[in-house]
Amino acid sequence: MAAPLGIALVGGGIFMKEQHVPAALACPLVSVKAVWSRSLKSAEGTAKLLVDAGTPVDVYSGDSGLEKSYDSLLKREDITGLILALPIMDQPSYIEKALAAGKHVLAEKPIAKDLDTAIKLIGYSKEVSIETQATLAIAENFRFMKGWAYAAEEIEKLGRVTGFVVRHNSMMQTNNKYYNTPWRTKPEHQGGFLLDGGVHYTAGIRKLLGEDHAIANVIALTSLITSHLPPKDTINAILQTKSGAVGSYIHSTGTTMQAYDFHVACEHGYVKATPDKVVTVRGLGADAKSEEKIFEKSSGVKEEVQAWAEALISGKPHPEQTPELALGDLELLEKMLTSGDEDGTRQKLEYQ
Amino acid sequence: MAAPLGIALVGGGIFMKEQHVPAALACPLVSVKAVWSRSLKSAEGTAKLLVDAGTPVDVYSGDSGLEKSYDSLLKREDITGLILALPIMDQPSYIEKALAAGKHVLAEKPIAKDLDTAIKLIGYSKEVSIETQATLAIAENFRFMKGWAYAAEEIEKLGRVTGFVVRHNSMMQTNNKYYNTPWRTKPEHQGGFLLDGGVHYTAGIRKLLGEDHAIANVIALTSLITSHLPPKDTINAILQTKSGAVGSYIHSTGTTMQAYDFHVACEHGYVKATPDKVVTVRGLGADAKSEEKIFEKSSGVKEEVQAWAEALISGKPHPEQTPELALGDLELLEKMLTSGDEDGTRQKLEYQ
Repeated sequence: MAAPLGIALVGGGIFMKEQHVPAALACPLVSVKAVWSRSLKSAEGTAKLLVDAGTPVDVYSGDSGLEKSYDSLLKREDITGLILALPIMDQPSYIEKALAAGKHVLAEKPIAKDLDTAIKLIGYSKEVSIETQATLAIAENFRFMKGWAYAAEEIEKLGRVTGFVVRHNSMMQTNNKYYNTPWRTKPEHQGGFLLDGGVHYTAGIRKLLGEDHAIANVIALTSLITSHLPPKDTINAILQTKSGAVGSYIHSTGTTMQAYDFHVACEHGYVKATPDKVVTVRGLGADAKSEEKIFEKSSGVKEEVQAWAEALISGKPHPEQTPELALGDLELLEKMLTSGDEDGTRQKLEYQ
Repeated sequence: MAAPLGIALVGGGIFMKEQHVPAALACPLVSVKAVWSRSLKSAEGTAKLLVDAGTPVDVYSGDSGLEKSYDSLLKREDITGLILALPIMDQPSYIEKALAAGKHVLAEKPIAKDLDTAIKLIGYSKEVSIETQATLAIAENFRFMKGWAYAAEEIEKLGRVTGFVVRHNSMMQTNNKYYNTPWRTKPEHQGGFLLDGGVHYTAGIRKLLGEDHAIANVIALTSLITSHLPPKDTINAILQTKSGAVGSYIHSTGTTMQAYDFHVACEHGYVKATPDKVVTVRGLGADAKSEEKIFEKSSGVKEEVQAWAEALISGKPHPEQTPELALGDLELLEKMLTSGDEDGTRQKLEYQ
């Protein structure tokens, strides 16, 4: 077996510490060589987790001088790729630098704060990869949760999609650890948590519907219910697929309501999907037969890191990690926000 | 105690036989003197139920000649009022004749097939009642189901309404008894079952939200999923209240999905309401307290007939049976259908 790929972890936030560190440690195909974060304190926090697990790493940070800078990290020849989880606004410039330095990147979703930035980033990555061979993958862990994949297969078996309802209602309280990330408390990215968490759900419904029922256009109203969640915390949208099916997308991070429903109706039954539990209902009324399948709880991050490493080794990008797919997730979200900004005007989608 | 009010039952359909006959028999304030239906056969069917219960009645019908005609029924001085349940398209002309003859009317919802017809009917009823003193009440049994009233009180206690979701998904199958009413199989009224059943749900959400959060405007897409349910069987809508709250309204009579959710979110919690069960959730997240209240199953028809009779005796129309309220239910439905016909254009509401 070849030596594991040397990688670095870029970013020292909650998701990096709680998800990517264990995922990298669990993946036999990679070996973490270094960490970088904007502050030394945060980088050391990430490093400690690795050291405690028996993986000594070099510590780089934005406040450690030139020798331990991001540029310096990117010069290391023993590092093949980066797992990058930075604030949404910062990611593109760090990704571009890494690709230019010839490092493969697995960057946290969303691909960027908006479509324009994402399209420029994809263009740059294509261009620079001709020279450096470095590849860009976008991490969307919901695509690696087993429930979605199983549910998508079940939907496929039930005939034409005839309608759907996506509903995620919750309250992002001020004592939530994610809320208390400075860039999230005062978001500069559109939609705030609606984008941050929301791309998971656009990815989820896109996965369930599949390409034949890709979303063609959206109408939405957006609102701010809870004052600590600017600029908006709620989307009520109507989505129409290119095949003509109509569905509703309801997402609020600022409501007292609690709901987590992904329902897709087909000609011969329907599927209720969550990452961990999928219910397939075949038939109608009294004759309907319901089948429930439970999956082990998983954030999907271990699976996505493993998939990324396998893709690097095989030289074939993983189809669930392409920037184009992440662009589609972002577009669906952004067009709902845009429709809301324009008081419910219909928005066409191009990247589905 | 005064003698019971003499009434007639007009219409011999399923709802008349299964609901209004038992309701009239159960109400000590009324005494059924006669029945009328378009066909003698149907009228005799209704009459038999009454006779079997010890209430002999005279039988009138559209095919029994002048002496046993509707006009002839309306001339009877021992009949004070009519309970009328006819096809949606037919009701207004029968209502007008009855009011002109000085008979009080309790007419099944919806008030008419469309707003124009309803507004003309209300205008006529106001005019003619100056002469004849006859009153028009519209029967919306959902307003007399205990769950809605209790849920509305709970919502009131939870502070400002911040959002809501109405969802009623089911399949009207071709073997359903209501489907096999000729005027429903080939509907001439807008929306088909979306109007017929749907006014119950517009009444339901209007009851829950109350006047302070009346719906101000709607955006909707409508579709026909199942070919036996023309003209449309599905609404996906976004509703905005005059207070600024936004909600989703999802109604399909032609989907394999099953759902019956009325959720109203407020500042301090939310309410999940159905006619028979209401769950109030106070507070947020781990601190939330949930309280469930179950009500005896009831269609509300007995209660509405009793309320109508009491209103006739007191001379004060029941506030839950006014034509204006029924106009509001119809308007909300019609504007969603119109928005759908116009591909999602925003529709303002005037009668809420």
